[in-house]
Amino acid sequence: MADRMVLLVFSGSYDKLVGMSVLVSGAVALDMEVDIYLMLWGAYAFKKDTIGKDMEISEHQSLAEKLKKGMEKAGLKPWFESLKELKKMGTVRIHACGAAAKTWDADLSNLEFVDDIVGATEMVSALSEAKIALFI
Amino acid sequence: MADRMVLLVFSGSYDKLVGMSVLVSGAVALDMEVDIYLMLWGAYAFKKDTIGKDMEISEHQSLAEKLKKGMEKAGLKPWFESLKELKKMGTVRIHACGAAAKTWDADLSNLEFVDDIVGATEMVSALSEAKIALFI
Amino acid sequence: MADRMVLLVFSGSYDKLVGMSVLVSGAVALDMEVDIYLMLWGAYAFKKDTIGKDMEISEHQSLAEKLKKGMEKAGLKPWFESLKELKKMGTVRIHACGAAAKTWDADLSNLEFVDDIVGATEMVSALSEAKIALFI
Repeated sequence: MADRMVLLVFSGSYDKLVGMSVLVSGAVALDMEVDIYLMLWGAYAFKKDTIGKDMEISEHQSLAEKLKKGMEKAGLKPWFESLKELKKMGTVRIHACGAAAKTWDADLSNLEFVDDIVGATEMVSALSEAKIALFI
Repeated sequence: MADRMVLLVFSGSYDKLVGMSVLVSGAVALDMEVDIYLMLWGAYAFKKDTIGKDMEISEHQSLAEKLKKGMEKAGLKPWFESLKELKKMGTVRIHACGAAAKTWDADLSNLEFVDDIVGATEMVSALSEAKIALFI
Repeated sequence: MADRMVLLVFSGSYDKLVGMSVLVSGAVALDMEVDIYLMLWGAYAFKKDTIGKDMEISEHQSLAEKLKKGMEKAGLKPWFESLKELKKMGTVRIHACGAAAKTWDADLSNLEFVDDIVGATEMVSALSEAKIALFI
């Protein structure tokens, strides 16, 4: 069985989601399987009516413009475009935490890229079996 | 010996502490032991004069009201109430990092839920023995 | 071979970098090797023209002054001074993520403490071999 990287994506900031996609690209290049669990703000960022509009949520709002320009110059794609490609290239499953989905009134119909909705026990169980487990 | 989940709780934001309690609930359901190490803002949030008042510290202040309403609708309890119950149901030890405690002039008398105060070496040692180790 | 702690330092906030140096001090005390990978804001904080000026970037800006006073009273050194000493005492390698470096127009000549610039694959590979792996 392939090694697995599990990312708990709690954050919904544009910058951290770029970080997420960089890590996923590395894992896919190494033929690892990836499971992403969307917690609170992560689930918010993946809502169909939010995705792609979240530049407003940056880790450092005062430096957001500077960051945006730097990323463009560096040729970094929007994280959701990278993720779409990575899902085609490798095994990348995306799950939403049930409590987060409920908080935002979200389900599979209005969440982008999400494969299923899971509970805390399944999330922790996946962490304990992962080769790499990170909270973002 | 039971598997152990170690959480380094650096953040003191209400939202991340809810995330912490969700993870602890999953670990307790799986009969894992949990060790929480409170670093800087985590220790701040567990001070007796701060605990329960920290909604002001949200990851995304501009969306804090929206989050609050969503959490109420989803039936999510305040994190400190969940934690209290989880401490009764399973093995959940809470430690404060010595440097953090000193920073906030805190000790066991004015920190809620905290079992002891430890140094960096003990913290890293616990991480290296854990089945799951996350920095929140 | 010595056990290894890998820190993905995504954040550039002063507070989290203090947390980083606390963790590194624990690992060095335990004779572990440490590899730090600077992602987006982490690379920003290690630029020669930013390092030491980043108190402006705190996790909780409204409490930054309170934090600063507390840290002084607790005798906590600036994180970059601690890191300098820790690099002399133990094995602490610091790498910058290529995408982050490009974003900030940075290279080895204008990044402090950085040993080399690496790609996502090398970063994920290091995570999978680490005894402790955290995203900060």
